[in-house]
Amino acid sequence: MRVLASIGMAAAAAILCTPASAQFAKPEDAIKYRQSALYVMAQQFGRLGAMAQGKAPYDANAAAENAELVQTMSHLPWPAFGPGTDKGRDTRAKPEIWADQAKFKEAQERLMNETSKLMVAAKAGNLDALKPAVQATGAACKNCHDQFRRD
Amino acid sequence: MRVLASIGMAAAAAILCTPASAQFAKPEDAIKYRQSALYVMAQQFGRLGAMAQGKAPYDANAAAENAELVQTMSHLPWPAFGPGTDKGRDTRAKPEIWADQAKFKEAQERLMNETSKLMVAAKAGNLDALKPAVQATGAACKNCHDQFRRD
Repeated sequence: MRVLASIGMAAAAAILCTPASAQFAKPEDAIKYRQSALYVMAQQFGRLGAMAQGKAPYDANAAAENAELVQTMSHLPWPAFGPGTDKGRDTRAKPEIWADQAKFKEAQERLMNETSKLMVAAKAGNLDALKPAVQATGAACKNCHDQFRRD
Repeated sequence: MRVLASIGMAAAAAILCTPASAQFAKPEDAIKYRQSALYVMAQQFGRLGAMAQGKAPYDANAAAENAELVQTMSHLPWPAFGPGTDKGRDTRAKPEIWADQAKFKEAQERLMNETSKLMVAAKAGNLDALKPAVQATGAACKNCHDQFRRD
């Protein structure tokens, strides 16, 4: 059980020391987690952007796979913006996130809604379906960044 | 198209300037990507570890969801260990990764194989099925770290 013991420790500490909803041991872990999830999402989405713009060859399978990943990743960052995670590590998160939770949630939901549509569009298997969905998803990214992320 | 234009640029640069297999604009992007994917995976897996050790209450739905994420994330890091990504950003990746590609690939495949079994086990919906799968997955993590990650 030695392997298990060392692996579970950080997570166990998280769960024992913080509200169940938070699931992070320290604010810096939450910040690192959300930055990581957003970075992976941005990279996958960038590949779709390149196809939509004709800067990379259109590949229906790769598009579907990337869109599915974007959709999955788009759900992960939000629980990591819990109370007290405004500092603890370099972050561009604006105070508005915690000052206007309803507006922040609305921006999250807009993104998750667009990534679901993006996934459907990518699975349709043609570039003409993909393009507007990539544009709408990109607009949802930008909407949130404009309001809640420092330049 | 302004939104699209700015979003796709980094990815487009990646695809035009590097081998298609790489898909990263710069070595530092690849390093950041793999570190991000591994961090998200480790966090999700830690939650399963805590349940398996009885340090967090067992929640069948959360276990299934986490295991599915672990399985998805376990496929992402490897294309980001391409040639030339041994430096460019702080990394604990050992030179052995590039010196013994077959052995590194074997370690990746062991992990992906275990995370697939972990997902099946988590979906069985009982803690007794989850425990050995968590342990086997943890051993696959450790196997790769012991060989290919600096302390």
